Amino acid sequence: MTISPDPRLRTALVPRSIAVIGATEDPNKVGGRPLHYIKRFGFSGAVYPINPRRKIIQGMQAYASLAELPETPDVAIVAVGQDAVADVIEQCATQAIACVILMSSGFGETGSAGVQRQTALVQQARRLGLRLVGPNAQGVANFHTGAVMNFSTMFMEIEPEDGPVAIISQSGAASVMPYAMLRERGVGVRYLIASGNDADASVCELALAAAVDPEIRVILLYIESLADPAMLAETARLAISRGAAVIALKAGRSVHGAKAAASHTGAMVNDDVVVEAFFERHGIWRAADVHGLINAVELYLALPPRPADSLVVMSHSGAVGVLCADAAETLNLPLTELAPAVVRNLADIMPSFATAQNPVDLTASLMTQSGMYAATLNTLATDPQADMFLIGVPVAGPGYDVQGMATDTATFAANTGKPAVVSAPQVSVRQIFREAGVPVFAHETDAINALHQWSRHGTLMQQASARDQLEAAAASVLALPDRTSHFLSEDESLAVLARADIPTVPYLLCRNADEALTAWRALGQDVVMKACSAHIPHKSEHGLVFIGPNSEQQIIDAWKKCVQRVAALQVPFDGVIVARRVSGRREFALGVRQDPAFGTVVMIGDGGKYVEALRDFVVLLHPFSQDDVIAKLHTLRIAPILAGVRGEAPIDLDTVAHTAVALARLAASHPRDITSIDLNPLIVGDTGSAGWAVDAVIERCKEQA
Amino acid sequence: MTISPDPRLRTALVPRSIAVIGATEDPNKVGGRPLHYIKRFGFSGAVYPINPRRKIIQGMQAYASLAELPETPDVAIVAVGQDAVADVIEQCATQAIACVILMSSGFGETGSAGVQRQTALVQQARRLGLRLVGPNAQGVANFHTGAVMNFSTMFMEIEPEDGPVAIISQSGAASVMPYAMLRERGVGVRYLIASGNDADASVCELALAAAVDPEIRVILLYIESLADPAMLAETARLAISRGAAVIALKAGRSVHGAKAAASHTGAMVNDDVVVEAFFERHGIWRAADVHGLINAVELYLALPPRPADSLVVMSHSGAVGVLCADAAETLNLPLTELAPAVVRNLADIMPSFATAQNPVDLTASLMTQSGMYAATLNTLATDPQADMFLIGVPVAGPGYDVQGMATDTATFAANTGKPAVVSAPQVSVRQIFREAGVPVFAHETDAINALHQWSRHGTLMQQASARDQLEAAAASVLALPDRTSHFLSEDESLAVLARADIPTVPYLLCRNADEALTAWRALGQDVVMKACSAHIPHKSEHGLVFIGPNSEQQIIDAWKKCVQRVAALQVPFDGVIVARRVSGRREFALGVRQDPAFGTVVMIGDGGKYVEALRDFVVLLHPFSQDDVIAKLHTLRIAPILAGVRGEAPIDLDTVAHTAVALARLAASHPRDITSIDLNPLIVGDTGSAGWAVDAVIERCKEQA
Repeated sequence: MTISPDPRLRTALVPRSIAVIGATEDPNKVGGRPLHYIKRFGFSGAVYPINPRRKIIQGMQAYASLAELPETPDVAIVAVGQDAVADVIEQCATQAIACVILMSSGFGETGSAGVQRQTALVQQARRLGLRLVGPNAQGVANFHTGAVMNFSTMFMEIEPEDGPVAIISQSGAASVMPYAMLRERGVGVRYLIASGNDADASVCELALAAAVDPEIRVILLYIESLADPAMLAETARLAISRGAAVIALKAGRSVHGAKAAASHTGAMVNDDVVVEAFFERHGIWRAADVHGLINAVELYLALPPRPADSLVVMSHSGAVGVLCADAAETLNLPLTELAPAVVRNLADIMPSFATAQNPVDLTASLMTQSGMYAATLNTLATDPQADMFLIGVPVAGPGYDVQGMATDTATFAANTGKPAVVSAPQVSVRQIFREAGVPVFAHETDAINALHQWSRHGTLMQQASARDQLEAAAASVLALPDRTSHFLSEDESLAVLARADIPTVPYLLCRNADEALTAWRALGQDVVMKACSAHIPHKSEHGLVFIGPNSEQQIIDAWKKCVQRVAALQVPFDGVIVARRVSGRREFALGVRQDPAFGTVVMIGDGGKYVEALRDFVVLLHPFSQDDVIAKLHTLRIAPILAGVRGEAPIDLDTVAHTAVALARLAASHPRDITSIDLNPLIVGDTGSAGWAVDAVIERCKEQA
Repeated sequence: MTISPDPRLRTALVPRSIAVIGATEDPNKVGGRPLHYIKRFGFSGAVYPINPRRKIIQGMQAYASLAELPETPDVAIVAVGQDAVADVIEQCATQAIACVILMSSGFGETGSAGVQRQTALVQQARRLGLRLVGPNAQGVANFHTGAVMNFSTMFMEIEPEDGPVAIISQSGAASVMPYAMLRERGVGVRYLIASGNDADASVCELALAAAVDPEIRVILLYIESLADPAMLAETARLAISRGAAVIALKAGRSVHGAKAAASHTGAMVNDDVVVEAFFERHGIWRAADVHGLINAVELYLALPPRPADSLVVMSHSGAVGVLCADAAETLNLPLTELAPAVVRNLADIMPSFATAQNPVDLTASLMTQSGMYAATLNTLATDPQADMFLIGVPVAGPGYDVQGMATDTATFAANTGKPAVVSAPQVSVRQIFREAGVPVFAHETDAINALHQWSRHGTLMQQASARDQLEAAAASVLALPDRTSHFLSEDESLAVLARADIPTVPYLLCRNADEALTAWRALGQDVVMKACSAHIPHKSEHGLVFIGPNSEQQIIDAWKKCVQRVAALQVPFDGVIVARRVSGRREFALGVRQDPAFGTVVMIGDGGKYVEALRDFVVLLHPFSQDDVIAKLHTLRIAPILAGVRGEAPIDLDTVAHTAVALARLAASHPRDITSIDLNPLIVGDTGSAGWAVDAVIERCKEQA
């Protein structure tokens, strides 16, 4: 399913004509700043200041009302008092304006009365068929056309320049912080959108409107509340299809942060682990902070991200090599083991005491041996294993041919098609490399982080495309039992899982003590007995689980206790499950639930008694493959054990992966029937020995009216 | 024990007169650069260029040899060819020069012949009674006196300025990178020492020589190999005694990094977890990279570090509050819960829709309500819980009174005595706050990291001082068994542990089957039987452990198997240990070993089968307190379980802590007898129920000649 961007919002990003309602002479007022910018940054379309009290505003002809305009403007900036907003929106609709950029404040951000006003406003806009950016929006800026419909003071301070970057943010501050940092690095920005209360057009929908511009190569997002993930998924799909990257800063991941975000935007709080899984699923890189949002942008602009996992570090300082090796290992980014022929050739170029290994230490000979820098790079270029290059320039000055190094580096990058970045603490050194087109960083860690992000993001983008090919719901729809309770009983739950191709423990549901005895014998006299009732999803806390009864008398006793205790709970009794006692190597806990925003969410964790306390789990969003599961399981803390240690065989992860995929499909194909499934434990043994779902609870959706 | 800095090295940092042997006219040569700097940076003492072929060098009178000088210079810079070095050292000694800064290369850094030359050089220097900085040293710079005996090109590029910071580095590059970054922030540096091969004076000893300067407030170290930790411990002690801070970047923590460091300096590789414990023990902050080395320096200079753990964030952007809350929670830095009276007073100052909670959101009202900034700060100053303040200024320009905000912030910091820092992406905004004396950061994460480091380092410094009061070896020396083997048997090991006040499992060493039967009965018929031999430290892999034999016949069978299997191994047989089978809640593994550089090192980890695979352990250096152990145990991954979850009682950590302290004391009081102790498992139960060392192996030191 492809979602197209709303053409009205696309128009808002690239308008041919703009009305400013509430226009003022003072360029430092909300109604004056956009006019000032539109003039200053060379917008070539028509601009219509609207103000009944002035003939001329900031040197432009003003109009008393929208009705007097010679044409219908594409977009209207609205900067009037809160009380006047509803009337103005009505007038805009009358004039068939497609989109309003609503800067007026006093809505959702001001408490419950404001929230009511905002709801009414959105209803009004939808009824009238126009789109809103805002309210409380800092606005939309297009630095390509000069349509800077944004009142931030930042563009008074730091001169804009057009470039292949879009910044879309719920927050005004969080839109201009990355702008300032990018401009300081000399990177141009085309779209800068601060959507404010996101009441109608969301930050995700606006991102999609920016993503359709084929010249945009990097999309940076600041999001506090992700209300509209499908629109963001589509943005990522569109961007990835042409090698453009989406990087998102989803704030409010902490308890205090979420609370602050809720009070800031009044919006819903997302479950952070689900957000994380969503980004990964769709090939969106998640930045931890504003610096992380922009750190790798120069590298992305130099070369579209792609999978790569082997790094060469070169410097004229041994210490830089050591520091880079440390930083790379922290990120599990391997340093290339140079091919023997490359090492031999390097040794011919370098002085005898220099290190012809990775990290490559050119030593101070760099200063005296002209040509050594280029010769070393040319030799490194012949190593097929080397994917990415980091050149450390910790110091330069008299004796260093920085200009030559910059040219050589740019030539090397162009010839190899591989990323080559430079780390240098001196601003002057960075500037020379930057002018040659080489991505530069102030220190090693920033450079390594950027290379890691670029390559890992390349992998995520590739995987996201591949995952789009997975069939979203290959499972057939199963008939679920009649709806008699909110939960299915263990018997019903296990039966559904078995039909969904999930391996379940051999068991029999027994209706009397004789059946229990028969089952005990049939299952090899080593069993677990559990009372079965759809009304008791958690049995052990009621003393309804009996492990290993091993005589006829004990079976009969367990039966009687189940009957008595369920009776005491005054709920229907379905019988007793007599299940083979299986023993494996490791227990996993699996869960699936339907998230209203993100769809079917699967959790897979280390099982056992301390599953909540240790929180060692991974989360995936449907659809995903068994390979996806196995890759995620390798990120668990217990991963070293799963591979088999101390002579043990590896754990049968294929069974875990198969079960997780089947569980996700089962839930995804019953979106209106199954709200969650708790499968705990899944007991698995050695590789190849399979496993068993030993207990499960399926929770049904609330009956729809 | 206090170690005093060598006065000869102190003289090398603050010389009154300098000879330059191998002086040249060209300021871009190693022998010319220091002369150029000494002149340029205003050194007022005597300078003696030595060069037999010139009368005048760089405008200064030159001398043919040291013997011709009118006085003995304090220090000699030596920049001659490698072949001439030995002769020059001899001449320096003849002239009673106390210290040589040896810039000549071609020694340890060039391979095995160079290592031999270096060893001979150090022997020569020690024989002659002079100290060496180097060889291969970039040199020593004192920007207070202008004695810049350092050939880095960096000071040609970035003008020095004196300040309360010392940088001491094994690497030249790693000395000038933090210099460049600090100078870019406007921070002055007094000492900049790059010690090269560290052959005689180590980076730690040079740090001590810098630390005695009472004006030095921050000492930054770059270390690849920590050969001399006692000297560094003394540096930290001296610094902490006056509130000065030591921050160290110990590189080579990764596998590749350690390999690169070894090839860079040819020096020994330290065990990184021990280095970590050493820094913590002595109140030294460990930086992860060069940026981390300098990031908090401005804050340290504003206020000496001290314990603090509650943060207030204030901004005119809600997003900044959210971002800061996220960053703080990542570091476990709590946001202050503001006192109700403070919240009420804030609400009076702020507009109704602004957030009078922490993070405090002033909103854009900041621009229109003059006095709101200062009034808010003054109100926050009344909250006794608030320890540290971060003010986010994401954007400023027309309408913002940045100068006023800077003055107000500086006044607030001065009045409260609490740290107040600013985060701002605009260089121009940072500059205004910096000039007012407010520490500034380019983004939120840097600011939060700095506040976290400052306060946590304050705690470490306080704890380090307190720990110095702990008696280093309170344990009395025990008589160990006669030396008949490299390991003590389990019986001998447990007996030593018991005498060292460590709770051990009840057991009896039995010499025949009858004794085993008697022991079985005496210990309650629930026992473990293990063959005992000093020659078999690992019994289970030889089938010598029998768990829960529960009949006379099984006891006799186990006895026989022990006898047979030990006989088959052809080692002496000491008997069979019959131990009560104890059951607790959790197993810990404890180990202690003597490290040649760091002393007695204790490891405490989550026990069980997967102790190596999961690597969930902590490391402490003797001496430490039980409280130290318990604080460290809270950093284990299993910490949530230790506190008691799902209705369980907490685990008895007091027993773990008591055992760890006793184990460390035992080893520390037998440095020439015990090389390691492996105590695994220590089984402990609920709080108050104590625990048992169930197995232990004491390893003896190799017999000294």
